[in-house]
Amino acid sequence: MLPWLMKAEVVSIGTELLLGEILDTNARYLGASLPAHGVDLFYISKVGDNLERLADVIGRARDRSDLVITTGGLGPTEDDLTREAIANVLGEELSVDDTEAGRLREFFAKRGAAMPERNLKQAMLIPSARVIPNPRGTAPGWWVERDGKIIVAMPGPPSEMERMWEREVAPALEARPDSGRSVLVTRTLKTAGVGEGHIDEMVSPLLKTNNPSVGVYARADGVHLRIGAKAPNRDEAQQLIEPLEAEMRSILGDIVWGADDETMEHAVGVLMRQHGLTLAAMESCTGGLLMHTLTNVPGSSAYVRGGLVSYSTEMKIEWGVDAAVIDEHGVISDECALAMARAVRERLAADIGIGITGVAGPAAQDGKPPGTIHIGVDAGFAEPQSVSYQFAQGREAVKRRAVSTALAMLRRTLIAAL
Amino acid sequence: MLPWLMKAEVVSIGTELLLGEILDTNARYLGASLPAHGVDLFYISKVGDNLERLADVIGRARDRSDLVITTGGLGPTEDDLTREAIANVLGEELSVDDTEAGRLREFFAKRGAAMPERNLKQAMLIPSARVIPNPRGTAPGWWVERDGKIIVAMPGPPSEMERMWEREVAPALEARPDSGRSVLVTRTLKTAGVGEGHIDEMVSPLLKTNNPSVGVYARADGVHLRIGAKAPNRDEAQQLIEPLEAEMRSILGDIVWGADDETMEHAVGVLMRQHGLTLAAMESCTGGLLMHTLTNVPGSSAYVRGGLVSYSTEMKIEWGVDAAVIDEHGVISDECALAMARAVRERLAADIGIGITGVAGPAAQDGKPPGTIHIGVDAGFAEPQSVSYQFAQGREAVKRRAVSTALAMLRRTLIAAL
Repeated sequence: MLPWLMKAEVVSIGTELLLGEILDTNARYLGASLPAHGVDLFYISKVGDNLERLADVIGRARDRSDLVITTGGLGPTEDDLTREAIANVLGEELSVDDTEAGRLREFFAKRGAAMPERNLKQAMLIPSARVIPNPRGTAPGWWVERDGKIIVAMPGPPSEMERMWEREVAPALEARPDSGRSVLVTRTLKTAGVGEGHIDEMVSPLLKTNNPSVGVYARADGVHLRIGAKAPNRDEAQQLIEPLEAEMRSILGDIVWGADDETMEHAVGVLMRQHGLTLAAMESCTGGLLMHTLTNVPGSSAYVRGGLVSYSTEMKIEWGVDAAVIDEHGVISDECALAMARAVRERLAADIGIGITGVAGPAAQDGKPPGTIHIGVDAGFAEPQSVSYQFAQGREAVKRRAVSTALAMLRRTLIAAL
Repeated sequence: MLPWLMKAEVVSIGTELLLGEILDTNARYLGASLPAHGVDLFYISKVGDNLERLADVIGRARDRSDLVITTGGLGPTEDDLTREAIANVLGEELSVDDTEAGRLREFFAKRGAAMPERNLKQAMLIPSARVIPNPRGTAPGWWVERDGKIIVAMPGPPSEMERMWEREVAPALEARPDSGRSVLVTRTLKTAGVGEGHIDEMVSPLLKTNNPSVGVYARADGVHLRIGAKAPNRDEAQQLIEPLEAEMRSILGDIVWGADDETMEHAVGVLMRQHGLTLAAMESCTGGLLMHTLTNVPGSSAYVRGGLVSYSTEMKIEWGVDAAVIDEHGVISDECALAMARAVRERLAADIGIGITGVAGPAAQDGKPPGTIHIGVDAGFAEPQSVSYQFAQGREAVKRRAVSTALAMLRRTLIAAL
């Protein structure tokens, strides 16, 4: 039997979350971080700025979990009720802590202002709470431990919460002497070009293990294989993962293009640099999104020569696309995409040129429906390649899908020819 | 006393949500949509693919709310447990519905495949459930009504869920004869260029009303004013909102640039079209993001001539930036940004040129730290304008902030000069 993991739940506080005004990125961040710290997350709740419901949710969370993490509700306004709710749940009284009050006044004085009296509530504590420092804002966090249960209250703004988590809370959890704690470490392999069912078949003998476990998931950028291992510590978990990862990679070969947080543009960047190549792109309907995506990778200036957003037929011709090709095949065609790829490769003196043309929508163009995409790749060291498809979704989704496809084509071109 | 709103909660189902692998956009979508359908949302929970916890969460939700909306867990695998959990909560038995089974087999036959037997569970129903059609996928939704409570189970994939919500579920909620239902309608005005405290002062007499209510929120694209009105129906709610909106607009004037879901690029597009102008951009560190953002607006081809991603000093000079300017001031400077704006305006024969140069990071460049940004706007009808600032965050955040700033500058240029 493996030692137990600490059971946690996350409570994201704020009426704007319930009204759909912002996304709950805090819960996502914590969900991704907790397993590696030996914590199983079973529940995530969002609740509004209402004392009764807050106390109800936090109280239940404390009953069923070992660790309750709240984000939000630590501001100075009357809608900030997290401290009050925790006091309510524990039946303890709030009072102003002089040290914290002094620290807060100093925070304002340093900025040449007097502390508004409303901020005094941020200096309040209950007997079971100790302060978690927050240099990035006015609200300190609370670490509340009593009767074998922990409540950690953190600020809502992601940059404040993430810093507090990384610098203060996660290390404190790691340092606890709780016996029997395990960690859960995951390693995700990302594949492209092969469907879920086929991947499943290829690695099926490897899927039967219990620890490490393997999950197969279809995602936008290909099929992901998530390996998860539970062990008393991270090193031992890695020792369970590594042989399984090695076996999978030997079966799947090039079908695996990256792991964990890696992106396709990153994988392309690695290959471009490995082979000392450069690229350039002429984009029409994607409007600059391919270049933006490629240049998100630090150091991409080493292989990205530049790009053109040729948003009209006139521009395409001015930048070297043969007018005769457009006359014969139209601007939404494989031939035009290839001509754009060739033109930008030559104009910008790159090794590889990419051309993307199509109909982003919602209106049709040249009689072609929204979501029609043609992509051309022109590389000196390989035959020009083009791909076309139709994918009808909203305008932004059409652009994103076109860019994903172009990146995958680029990678295949590099892998195949070198 | 206003009539009550139906109380709802949303349960987002899927272990990948708890592991932080994906963001809960479904909850956000529903949170933004529910108030206008006369529904108050008080709780949002995420729970994993575990029958016991699912039944626990759905059961509690059904106890405390009138309407429970679940997303996810309707797939064909053994991890898909939403139907089982609802059956468990209601104490009803699952059985295969022949009509649904037939429809599913046909769905696969149309795609030239036999239905895998595992998909048969998607044709199951309990006595209190009726099917909600899902033409976008294999899993029908469930509408389960019993003892005055409703559970609506929808698929996880956002495009399937959103369609089902808009086409089937929301209209069914609207059509209910429940007496005493109110709606909550909101209208958000978006401002730019003036801080939260100052906006607060300018509109403070208007903030004291109870219904409609007004909230002031600092957001990335400026300060937002959210007007909310509760009334027996949408028309009456609008009648409460309109006079207040008109007063705010008359106080704030041009400071208001848009409302509700409008984006700055949309607002710019409206002005560009109003005045029959065209624009072009030369981007360095933003790598195409400005052009991508501008071209997200349908119909932008009317005013976007095109763009250049000049990712090297060489490219900038080749495209018309005076080498002497670069020699004297360097490539990360207001002078270079203005020269880029001028060059692209002339090269692409546009009315307005925009140039963006800077350091995306994480490495410094030319001795300038990451987050250094210089933006130039060159318009025939106005004095060239440049802006520079330093904003140190991750690479993508630096690019996004630069694009937001450029769009705001563009808008100010258009408003001021025309």
